[in-house]
Amino acid sequence: MTTPRPTTNASLITNVRLADGRRVEVSIVDGRIAALGAALSREPGVPVEDGGDALLLPGFVEGHTHLDKTNWGLRWYRNEVGPKLTDRIENERRWRAESGHDAGAQSLALARAFLAAGTTRVRTHVDIDTDAGLRHLDGVLATRDTLRDVLDLQIVAFPQSGLLGRPGTDALLDRALGAGADVLGALDPALIDGDPVKSLDLTFALAERHRKPIDIHLHEPGEIGAFTLGLLLDRVAAHGMQGLVVVSHAFCLGALPERERDALLARLAELRVALLTTAPPSVPVPPLTACRAHGVTLFGGNDGIRDTWTPYGSPDMLERAMLIAMRYGLRRDDDLALAFDCVSGVAARACGFEAYGLQPGARADLVLVDADTLAHALVARPVRKLVVAHGRVVARDGALLAR
Amino acid sequence: MTTPRPTTNASLITNVRLADGRRVEVSIVDGRIAALGAALSREPGVPVEDGGDALLLPGFVEGHTHLDKTNWGLRWYRNEVGPKLTDRIENERRWRAESGHDAGAQSLALARAFLAAGTTRVRTHVDIDTDAGLRHLDGVLATRDTLRDVLDLQIVAFPQSGLLGRPGTDALLDRALGAGADVLGALDPALIDGDPVKSLDLTFALAERHRKPIDIHLHEPGEIGAFTLGLLLDRVAAHGMQGLVVVSHAFCLGALPERERDALLARLAELRVALLTTAPPSVPVPPLTACRAHGVTLFGGNDGIRDTWTPYGSPDMLERAMLIAMRYGLRRDDDLALAFDCVSGVAARACGFEAYGLQPGARADLVLVDADTLAHALVARPVRKLVVAHGRVVARDGALLAR
Repeated sequence: MTTPRPTTNASLITNVRLADGRRVEVSIVDGRIAALGAALSREPGVPVEDGGDALLLPGFVEGHTHLDKTNWGLRWYRNEVGPKLTDRIENERRWRAESGHDAGAQSLALARAFLAAGTTRVRTHVDIDTDAGLRHLDGVLATRDTLRDVLDLQIVAFPQSGLLGRPGTDALLDRALGAGADVLGALDPALIDGDPVKSLDLTFALAERHRKPIDIHLHEPGEIGAFTLGLLLDRVAAHGMQGLVVVSHAFCLGALPERERDALLARLAELRVALLTTAPPSVPVPPLTACRAHGVTLFGGNDGIRDTWTPYGSPDMLERAMLIAMRYGLRRDDDLALAFDCVSGVAARACGFEAYGLQPGARADLVLVDADTLAHALVARPVRKLVVAHGRVVARDGALLAR
Repeated sequence: MTTPRPTTNASLITNVRLADGRRVEVSIVDGRIAALGAALSREPGVPVEDGGDALLLPGFVEGHTHLDKTNWGLRWYRNEVGPKLTDRIENERRWRAESGHDAGAQSLALARAFLAAGTTRVRTHVDIDTDAGLRHLDGVLATRDTLRDVLDLQIVAFPQSGLLGRPGTDALLDRALGAGADVLGALDPALIDGDPVKSLDLTFALAERHRKPIDIHLHEPGEIGAFTLGLLLDRVAAHGMQGLVVVSHAFCLGALPERERDALLARLAELRVALLTTAPPSVPVPPLTACRAHGVTLFGGNDGIRDTWTPYGSPDMLERAMLIAMRYGLRRDDDLALAFDCVSGVAARACGFEAYGLQPGARADLVLVDADTLAHALVARPVRKLVVAHGRVVARDGALLAR
């Protein structure tokens, strides 16, 4: 008779609760959820982690940030910037030239903070411009490589200074997509580039050449934003890019007459174009209820975190979910769950992060918090008791473990 | 020769920084700031607290909350309430009758959490209605008494179910003002009471009889809110109550044509009527910039915290300041300081809390946090390293000391 050999890379988490109240155990094998249910069978020798009656959540998803820009962990950056978008762009380029900002070290510091707070998938926009070239991309690629066993980093090659204004930007984006960027970014084709048709045509041509998805930052308000969005949707259809385009911000959808807005929402749904919101409280946002009614995917993110643009933001995606819920005036527990979806399942689908969730077969990215319910977790944002990434414990009580 | 006797009840805090960057020490005598400056003289025997290079802030002010309603520290309350104001009022009255909610214990729990987070002055609205009578007031009065040496609790007698709809409410308010309530509350004279003139006349008569200030919750939107606000301002002038009235919420001022809005702001300034905002991101708010331009006082508060109305809110007033700053789209450091004013000096003046601030003679209510700057403190909301109330240390590292 031989003793059964314990499964390699297996572990068991006991004594946790799902958001629906069920008490479960989670069996993890080779970095994936093998089973989830009450009283799973225990193989001898498999390490057991007592969840201590914590609430079990899937690892969180950051749908839109700028890891390369952050001053996270550095001395406070005193913001004395003017109010216009171009003020902020110029200020940042000037400051970067002067400060010797290190996108590699900074992106790593913030990515680690995301991980400690339970986020295991991040879409980050990385500045590509004619001053910096691919320097920021190189830094973020290094961060991706460093954390490859615990964090999925999706990189958007983002022309922060515009695509048309500085000759050579398109060639840099082309190189960035060849060098490891996953997604092509874009920015205000009318109000920054001044030529929405030319800007969008160039963007779609680049994306098509590399067979990469698009994520466009569309801050353009009201009617001009609606016009640009219409041009964009024409090109999604023409290039067959259904399901491969995200429109970030889309402030215009929060400030249009209902009929015009609904016509755009219907087209967004038909072309499976998703919307990303940071849920800013001081500007219009895409309407959550109308998006859901039309079947338009709306997910969430921080945007920049403590950089020259903004003092705000946090690597805690429970806080972002709370801010989203507050922005949309949600109070009921079932409505707060929709806000959590924006930084978990819905965000994973919108960005194309695979094997996501709490079902068997999904990658074992798990978060344990001391909270009675999901709504409680959102508003209390408790310290993360345990974070599991790719099946292994990476953080306890809010702090990353030494590797 | 005699050794000088140390001053009774004296202490010294060294090694702290002001928001303007100056490094100072603070000498405290008999619960007040005796001196504040670089390298103060040290009397022998006076205990010295090393501030560890922390940022020194004045104790915070909560301008509008409902200590009596909160479920703070209890099991999570599952919110399944309908969307209307009356849904929430009815739901709460029903729930209170069923749950045996203890306003005394709950207000004490939340008040202690405020203190631990650095708030030493609180204006709380306490429900007075024909079901509960003065029961909630009695509970909050007990809390005020328990904490009288460390926390200023200003109590507003608040007709949460309306003044006119339930006969006998005015008599209860009359008794509440006689029993220790500091301020008379009021609620939507048109949309809840249905008779704005009668409701306001009754409110002002009651306030005049007791010589108490007024704090009215005005949720009425747009034009109806403007109409009610106009009626209110007429009565402030007629009753000579300049400087003694606060209008909480005042959503209407965020949604009027500029000319009409500015006419109301000019009257508010002239009559020294202050505005309180919780800075809700999903409804219009009084415009900060226009209020400042007209000389109208605007200050901040949470409203309810984790009760049957709302899952949100926090006893951390740095978080409220951050939410106010975000709501108004503030990004510059000097603008974030305005948001902090809303939960400190401006709130103290608006509520009539005396001896407030960091100048000699002010009561020694102090908060120390590890932050580079004031803006940093707002967005990072660090654990309170030290909280001093009435000259004595009441909390360290976020936890209240045993009394």
